[in-house]
Amino acid sequence: MHGNKHLFIPGPTNVPEQVRQAMNIPMEDMRAPDFGAFVSDLLDDMKKAYRLENGRVFIFPSSGTGAWESAITNTLSEGDSVLMSRFGQFSLLWVDMCERLGLNVDLCEVEWGKGVPVEEYAAKLAADKDHKIKAVFATHNETATGVSSDIAGVRAALDAANHPAMLFVDGVSSIGSIEFEMEKWGVDLAVSGSQKGFMLPAGLGFLGVSEKALAANASNNQKMNRCYFSFEDMIALNDTGYFPYTPATQLLRGLRVSLDMMLDAGMENIWSRHTFLAEGVRKAVDAWDGCELVARGPEWASDTVSAIYAPEGVDARDVIGTAYNKYQTSLGTGLNKLMGKAFRIGHLGSLNPVMLCGAISAAEMALRDSGAKIKAGSGVAAAQEHYRSK
Amino acid sequence: MHGNKHLFIPGPTNVPEQVRQAMNIPMEDMRAPDFGAFVSDLLDDMKKAYRLENGRVFIFPSSGTGAWESAITNTLSEGDSVLMSRFGQFSLLWVDMCERLGLNVDLCEVEWGKGVPVEEYAAKLAADKDHKIKAVFATHNETATGVSSDIAGVRAALDAANHPAMLFVDGVSSIGSIEFEMEKWGVDLAVSGSQKGFMLPAGLGFLGVSEKALAANASNNQKMNRCYFSFEDMIALNDTGYFPYTPATQLLRGLRVSLDMMLDAGMENIWSRHTFLAEGVRKAVDAWDGCELVARGPEWASDTVSAIYAPEGVDARDVIGTAYNKYQTSLGTGLNKLMGKAFRIGHLGSLNPVMLCGAISAAEMALRDSGAKIKAGSGVAAAQEHYRSK
Amino acid sequence: MHGNKHLFIPGPTNVPEQVRQAMNIPMEDMRAPDFGAFVSDLLDDMKKAYRLENGRVFIFPSSGTGAWESAITNTLSEGDSVLMSRFGQFSLLWVDMCERLGLNVDLCEVEWGKGVPVEEYAAKLAADKDHKIKAVFATHNETATGVSSDIAGVRAALDAANHPAMLFVDGVSSIGSIEFEMEKWGVDLAVSGSQKGFMLPAGLGFLGVSEKALAANASNNQKMNRCYFSFEDMIALNDTGYFPYTPATQLLRGLRVSLDMMLDAGMENIWSRHTFLAEGVRKAVDAWDGCELVARGPEWASDTVSAIYAPEGVDARDVIGTAYNKYQTSLGTGLNKLMGKAFRIGHLGSLNPVMLCGAISAAEMALRDSGAKIKAGSGVAAAQEHYRSK
Amino acid sequence: MHGNKHLFIPGPTNVPEQVRQAMNIPMEDMRAPDFGAFVSDLLDDMKKAYRLENGRVFIFPSSGTGAWESAITNTLSEGDSVLMSRFGQFSLLWVDMCERLGLNVDLCEVEWGKGVPVEEYAAKLAADKDHKIKAVFATHNETATGVSSDIAGVRAALDAANHPAMLFVDGVSSIGSIEFEMEKWGVDLAVSGSQKGFMLPAGLGFLGVSEKALAANASNNQKMNRCYFSFEDMIALNDTGYFPYTPATQLLRGLRVSLDMMLDAGMENIWSRHTFLAEGVRKAVDAWDGCELVARGPEWASDTVSAIYAPEGVDARDVIGTAYNKYQTSLGTGLNKLMGKAFRIGHLGSLNPVMLCGAISAAEMALRDSGAKIKAGSGVAAAQEHYRSK
Repeated sequence: MHGNKHLFIPGPTNVPEQVRQAMNIPMEDMRAPDFGAFVSDLLDDMKKAYRLENGRVFIFPSSGTGAWESAITNTLSEGDSVLMSRFGQFSLLWVDMCERLGLNVDLCEVEWGKGVPVEEYAAKLAADKDHKIKAVFATHNETATGVSSDIAGVRAALDAANHPAMLFVDGVSSIGSIEFEMEKWGVDLAVSGSQKGFMLPAGLGFLGVSEKALAANASNNQKMNRCYFSFEDMIALNDTGYFPYTPATQLLRGLRVSLDMMLDAGMENIWSRHTFLAEGVRKAVDAWDGCELVARGPEWASDTVSAIYAPEGVDARDVIGTAYNKYQTSLGTGLNKLMGKAFRIGHLGSLNPVMLCGAISAAEMALRDSGAKIKAGSGVAAAQEHYRSK
Repeated sequence: MHGNKHLFIPGPTNVPEQVRQAMNIPMEDMRAPDFGAFVSDLLDDMKKAYRLENGRVFIFPSSGTGAWESAITNTLSEGDSVLMSRFGQFSLLWVDMCERLGLNVDLCEVEWGKGVPVEEYAAKLAADKDHKIKAVFATHNETATGVSSDIAGVRAALDAANHPAMLFVDGVSSIGSIEFEMEKWGVDLAVSGSQKGFMLPAGLGFLGVSEKALAANASNNQKMNRCYFSFEDMIALNDTGYFPYTPATQLLRGLRVSLDMMLDAGMENIWSRHTFLAEGVRKAVDAWDGCELVARGPEWASDTVSAIYAPEGVDARDVIGTAYNKYQTSLGTGLNKLMGKAFRIGHLGSLNPVMLCGAISAAEMALRDSGAKIKAGSGVAAAQEHYRSK
Repeated sequence: MHGNKHLFIPGPTNVPEQVRQAMNIPMEDMRAPDFGAFVSDLLDDMKKAYRLENGRVFIFPSSGTGAWESAITNTLSEGDSVLMSRFGQFSLLWVDMCERLGLNVDLCEVEWGKGVPVEEYAAKLAADKDHKIKAVFATHNETATGVSSDIAGVRAALDAANHPAMLFVDGVSSIGSIEFEMEKWGVDLAVSGSQKGFMLPAGLGFLGVSEKALAANASNNQKMNRCYFSFEDMIALNDTGYFPYTPATQLLRGLRVSLDMMLDAGMENIWSRHTFLAEGVRKAVDAWDGCELVARGPEWASDTVSAIYAPEGVDARDVIGTAYNKYQTSLGTGLNKLMGKAFRIGHLGSLNPVMLCGAISAAEMALRDSGAKIKAGSGVAAAQEHYRSK
Repeated sequence: MHGNKHLFIPGPTNVPEQVRQAMNIPMEDMRAPDFGAFVSDLLDDMKKAYRLENGRVFIFPSSGTGAWESAITNTLSEGDSVLMSRFGQFSLLWVDMCERLGLNVDLCEVEWGKGVPVEEYAAKLAADKDHKIKAVFATHNETATGVSSDIAGVRAALDAANHPAMLFVDGVSSIGSIEFEMEKWGVDLAVSGSQKGFMLPAGLGFLGVSEKALAANASNNQKMNRCYFSFEDMIALNDTGYFPYTPATQLLRGLRVSLDMMLDAGMENIWSRHTFLAEGVRKAVDAWDGCELVARGPEWASDTVSAIYAPEGVDARDVIGTAYNKYQTSLGTGLNKLMGKAFRIGHLGSLNPVMLCGAISAAEMALRDSGAKIKAGSGVAAAQEHYRSK
């Protein structure tokens, strides 16, 4: 093995050099007098990345899965009804968690390749005159299928029904990469993690919480048991600039730099950059005979990850294995029912066109090695022409 | 500020250069074909550090607090009776967690400066003929007071009473530093974290689990709700060398190197090194007029952290603040009822005599600046003589 | 600017992560008792990379230019006649140095695109019955034109003429990358540097010196003035494992790791890897309409760098500027008479096919942006098919 | 070995974390379009650290020894008379270089422990009516003996004699640490290196050159042979922001940060900080029975390094060896005639009082281990009281 390994999974993403430098540090005292101001600024700036005016963002030493659990256990009670939809491995796991935590899930099954069924949600919300539904769950970006959903549409459905349910969003692979407006869209709980758009190693779970969700936490006497992920402990200490237990300071120092990079760039510019980069990958997929996106139409295609069906007769696992073993390139695997059928190219975070030309080349070579009849260079040629257009 | 900052809190501890190098890496795919073998070896070697033959060690992206929660929620049920003792901020927080999670705590209050009341435990266990007590909790090393407890003694008490309760140990600031024998002592659940004896940044919670505790998890149908910290998910994936959610790979790569360093050194040698280093600090404290250990006698004094009462009339917060602001040295603060009365010197992890002579000098200068009538250089002179003795 | 910058100049080359880790260190004492053994091993292993049984390799804190100067000033005298050839910017600069240092240069001018004129050398050596020529200079790899020369052929010419002149080789961009056999080829002085095949940052100049050259140094009483680059001082201290002045210890620690990587891989495998990678770039150039190698035929084409004529009417500076500014990719510039006409792709050091597919894509996009009528993706398609073939 | 190694030699010095971060980078193109502006700013700021309004500072990939050679070979001719003094290993080596380069050295031998004999210089300059002396050499800080000389005094002597000789200063271990005013003092050539006050790894030689020295270079037709270290090549390229050969870019990126730190702190503050830190070490030496500074009086004592005579009967090599092997602490060795008699503590660069308390403790323990009858803790107690005084 020589040269760089190439990482094109939908998270962990590539860490910018500045962030890597910022994490190359000795340890520090998380109770130092000047640590509190550092944390307070960081929490404020996290709200900017979340586009949240009011409310809070919590930072847990955890993965995004932990932030999911925090969102649920702090605001809902066993037996509460929630509206969910399932169209990929991560929305599936979220449903699984809700069921295990004792929620009563009203589940919309959706074809994998499409996203949150806004109209079905609207109908159910309109029908729920008694407001039994306490929360509506929406996976903003289904990482397994490369599908983005219309969160603003879900909000509109709630508003149209004049429904008081909280809106939970899984933004793990969307926040910091594609358009996300927590305050404007009336999102109440928004989960993310360090290893995607925030361009850090895995290890931090983020949770944006609206004023309404904070009130739900404060007024609910039947909350589920939780300590590590409890809002109360975090609020009490965060208000002083500290944490209820030892925070992952190395990652926080990295987050300081990645947030600076993000806010300096401007969130809108980050979003449009992701669209531009993603479009090049999609042009490549279009150029590959027999390949197509798992996303069932451009309105669903995600700007952070493309899940791609291998051509008929080609095992996507061979493509992924060949890319890794022969070309030192990590592509995303096909999860659950996509296993063997699809592979994924992550195109979020710290990336640029030449990196993606490398990724597309690796996929192209691995596809041909695995028996696909695509034309050599066809994808990268299409991507190049797109990337040149700017 | 010029030169190194000096870190002498009882965790996070100083990270060895080799570990720091190992974390200076690009991100990687946690589903890569060769990642599983890496994880399997790591989990095996964690058992060696825990001195565990059977059972498992889990690695959570969390702090030690998360591992506490995992231990409880996976093996106990709401309303279960547990035997606990409280003699410092961390044993206090553990009691608090158990109460919040709905356990019925039989609590022994102990003077701060002493540790687990083995005889009181023994009496209670002997009296518990019906075996209502499902678990006995022991804080091995109370980080707030610099007190170590006799875990083997607790085991002996359980055995003497022929009591089937599980033995829970908080080893956050002991495992990897001072003598700890999970298998030999019959510990069922042993909590630790990355940022102490394991010489890593904070961000990983460790949980050693005995066969008996695994069986308790498997057979208990009234376990508390938990997903993130559930044993089942972790076992299912760990058995394949992977994790149920994105692991903190950067820290795992660092852990690989710190574990190698630890196992190469030999756990017994690590323990005796900690005793040797701690003894120098204690000699310094003895030499300081008016200072004394919070630990009420040598049998309680911890080899990983010394909590030290400032002399009468000296506010320990001044000592800590002066050390930090004037001497770039982080000492541990006095927590809870020790606030203002005591400061702490952490002496665990990647340390050596000259580093501790610096720490003692910083404390000495800060003490004198804060009004203590100790003799300049008295502590470091005593420590030097001890360190020369080897 | 987002994502990685891409470096495809013929040095400095990309530094492997292991080497980067090894340089992430605190400073150390270059007179420490254990430093000498470290240096001695390093010097021994440098000889293995040079394929030198006898003689020595010196490591100077300098660039390769300094090592050039050391070679000359330690073994030759003002007025000495030397046989040289000029066919690119670096052979040109070497001639310039020799003239400035007072040597009497017998110069063969060669068309840029070809290399050392072995037959002309042979004729001159045969004609030099009085052995006025003290040294024969050969640029093994002319970095400016992407041309490799036949050093074994030069040795054969010397042997055929039974000529005692020393053989000087500029191996800056060849040693550690393409076949180089110092002992077998009877090379007397061989210059290299850290930032090419040795995969380190710039800052170290290497000089391999044969027994014969050492003897020339020892016996020559008219050597030129030099201190910093003098053999005597270096020999005296190197023999004890130290240096006559402060060495660049950080780079030496990096060199330790890069040498380990090189010797573990095996020099022959490194050479064949460079051929394989270079061939992909050449296939791409072949596929680009109107582009061609500066090298005048496959026998001259270098496996470490390709100098490529831009198509008629395209300014190569536009290609390079566009690659850098629009595609974050550093290509090598056209030096001297190649300025505006040619650009270069470095393909030596720590590289792999997917990195080169990125480089070729960047060049391809920049060429089209600059008006070249090449077909999008044509080069990368050709390269891919080559890289798949292994 | 556990914990940090401690480095208290007079260079390489401890590298600040910010500088270390800045060197943790991928390689870059030293011919990139934006590299020139980076270099130009760096060269400008180097002049600020040198306190030079006019003239230039050159940065060579070399040690300070190379910069010595550059100063001489660019401005003097073989046979030129120079006035020098010798009072330690480094002034000795400088004399040696001058003699080897063919200069006619008028040498003042001075007792080791004193510095440049200003009055003797004054007398010789006054006597040199024909201005045969082309240059006056002064070692500002003799690193081997811990002695600083009066450069302003040498300038005054030149001025008093109205003598046109150039003033050469070895500022390797003074510039960036103790008061140095190149322009104000009329220094013509001032040598330094990266690994001392500039707080970088070794690998860069610095040379400040006055307008007068530049003119001497331009007008002198008998300059010595040199290419690598020639002013002309460096000037031609530096004027465009580039270098005549591959620069050590990693170190230049580190230098950017260390210069920022230095200029932000203010040179005067750096100088007074060094005095403050040095004074603590001297207090310790005073407190050690039987030890004394090599410097023959406070007027000679250097603020960057203290050379300390071990007590009668104690071999200083034992002290140094014990410090290194038992206490992981590098002290400076006794060079040349000081070998076995003295050891050195470097106190320049990125340091603070607690680090020096560690150094003093290490020396104290090693002294006692080696048989010195000093009182344990005596030195560190004296140092502490000094450091508290601020």
